[in-house]
Amino acid sequence: MKNNTLSRITDSIKTELGQFNLLFSKSLKSKTALVDLVTKYILNQKGKKIRPTLVLLSAKLVGEISERTYRGAILVELLHTATLVHDDVVDSAETRRGLPSINAIWKSKVAVLIGDYLLAKGLMISVDGNDFDFLRVMTNTVKRMSEGELLQISKTRKLDTDEETYFRIISDKTASLLSTCCEIGARSASDSKEVIEALRDFGTNLGIAFQIKDDVLDYTGSNKIIGKPSGGDIKEKKITLPLLHALKLAPAKESKEIIKIIKKGAKKDGVARVIDFVKKYDGIEHATKIAEEYIEKAKSNLELFPDSENKTTLIDLLDFIVNRQK
Amino acid sequence: MKNNTLSRITDSIKTELGQFNLLFSKSLKSKTALVDLVTKYILNQKGKKIRPTLVLLSAKLVGEISERTYRGAILVELLHTATLVHDDVVDSAETRRGLPSINAIWKSKVAVLIGDYLLAKGLMISVDGNDFDFLRVMTNTVKRMSEGELLQISKTRKLDTDEETYFRIISDKTASLLSTCCEIGARSASDSKEVIEALRDFGTNLGIAFQIKDDVLDYTGSNKIIGKPSGGDIKEKKITLPLLHALKLAPAKESKEIIKIIKKGAKKDGVARVIDFVKKYDGIEHATKIAEEYIEKAKSNLELFPDSENKTTLIDLLDFIVNRQK
Repeated sequence: MKNNTLSRITDSIKTELGQFNLLFSKSLKSKTALVDLVTKYILNQKGKKIRPTLVLLSAKLVGEISERTYRGAILVELLHTATLVHDDVVDSAETRRGLPSINAIWKSKVAVLIGDYLLAKGLMISVDGNDFDFLRVMTNTVKRMSEGELLQISKTRKLDTDEETYFRIISDKTASLLSTCCEIGARSASDSKEVIEALRDFGTNLGIAFQIKDDVLDYTGSNKIIGKPSGGDIKEKKITLPLLHALKLAPAKESKEIIKIIKKGAKKDGVARVIDFVKKYDGIEHATKIAEEYIEKAKSNLELFPDSENKTTLIDLLDFIVNRQK
Repeated sequence: MKNNTLSRITDSIKTELGQFNLLFSKSLKSKTALVDLVTKYILNQKGKKIRPTLVLLSAKLVGEISERTYRGAILVELLHTATLVHDDVVDSAETRRGLPSINAIWKSKVAVLIGDYLLAKGLMISVDGNDFDFLRVMTNTVKRMSEGELLQISKTRKLDTDEETYFRIISDKTASLLSTCCEIGARSASDSKEVIEALRDFGTNLGIAFQIKDDVLDYTGSNKIIGKPSGGDIKEKKITLPLLHALKLAPAKESKEIIKIIKKGAKKDGVARVIDFVKKYDGIEHATKIAEEYIEKAKSNLELFPDSENKTTLIDLLDFIVNRQK
């Protein structure tokens, strides 16, 4: 995968992304000076805009990009931004995209309120555009995202995740929003149930593959590349697919020992021990194989559509999202 | 005002409130155990249910309470609850209604996610019920509430509020939700623009009167009654109507001195000095008079409707909300 893949992908819809950026900035304008100040700061952080790109490419695949497509793209980006701002408060994160976080500059109270503001603004744009189908999809997604995170937290506390629960967690907390991007893009340009369902499933499979790969990176990545300490999930007591597989294959006694290490809060040596364990029982190969299966599923969801430059670009974006190293 | 006023008010719609409580508990059910646990805890906190009561009484005043009325009542209560849960995170509050707060028991991350879940759940109920007019009103209200709080924060930092800004802040942060309760109740039972507008204005005027009275209490209340130290606003550098009036009437030199005391962070002596200043220039009488004017405005918004037991009850609720001591 070349480094310039994302710019090659976005180049193919440069005009549309330009139009999106314009409308997105406009949607953030407020008569309250502090809101304007903070949202300008957010715009300067320049995210990768992966979610609006998914909306635009999905719409283009199944029909024409319209005003409604842009409203959908703004909705998902506003919601995603709101989530990031709230996440940084909860994690007391000091930085975001290399710049100080909102909570670091303006304190938590402002950050929580700005998150609420962005969420409300996104929903208002859908209400004003009479995009009630978007609202139906999106409110359900917000619910699933919070439920998925809460399920993960409760499983982390009890350390009793199984594969079924793992897939429910990652479907809800990660795949649901990516799926919604594709579904909203499709809905903005097509009325066909089959088409909408194909794009929704494409997004779901893409999202699941992405999260599994992300979880694998926690075992294989190095500090410099993933920008966080390798083994972070182990320290946070998150049991993900590579470990689940190893726990299933290893003798009960060894598995119990590993769970004990994680439970008491693994430090440097403990983390190394767990990583070795996962490697010994092929946890990384297994999880990578499963992720590849989901990538193939995602690609097969697009079989419905004839080959085109746009379809190739959407598959490139799938590869970029799933294989990105940070 | 008798202590048993609220129970007398709620007694008049006992059956309907019972039905509401049943539907509200049902709406909080989740397949995720942790969500169920936290929401059961919230139900046990037993709020006063002032907002759903406003919805029900407004609907009854203008027509019949229907399924749609209950959905509206659930929407406002879920949204209000979400706001309280998020507020407690931001303020690091240890208690709520005499019990440990959600963040105190389950930590901030869970509290933020539960707040998001409740908000999404409320909106979903409106989407599922095709109550798109409720969504229109409610998303605008969420936006106004966050903008109002953010405006207050920026004015607090700069200490440069004027009366116009004060009224914008309290209209947005406080009155908008109470107004929305009355409007949604009216919309659930009437199509008349005039009727809907009358109830919306009733709620707005009620909300403004309530917030002014609350701000006056900060100068007149004692610890025991208001449950927080008298002069809390002064310590937090919030300039409210009683102080604004005194600053306007006092000689420039004296006003400057008071602003200086507040700016550097007033302690016990400073707070006493500011309270004396406000009393000297009739700030409390003035603000109380303005609040009374808004109460009268609210009552006149109901002139449209013939006298009835239900109308009397709604006015009793207005008096209860505005005059409650905590």
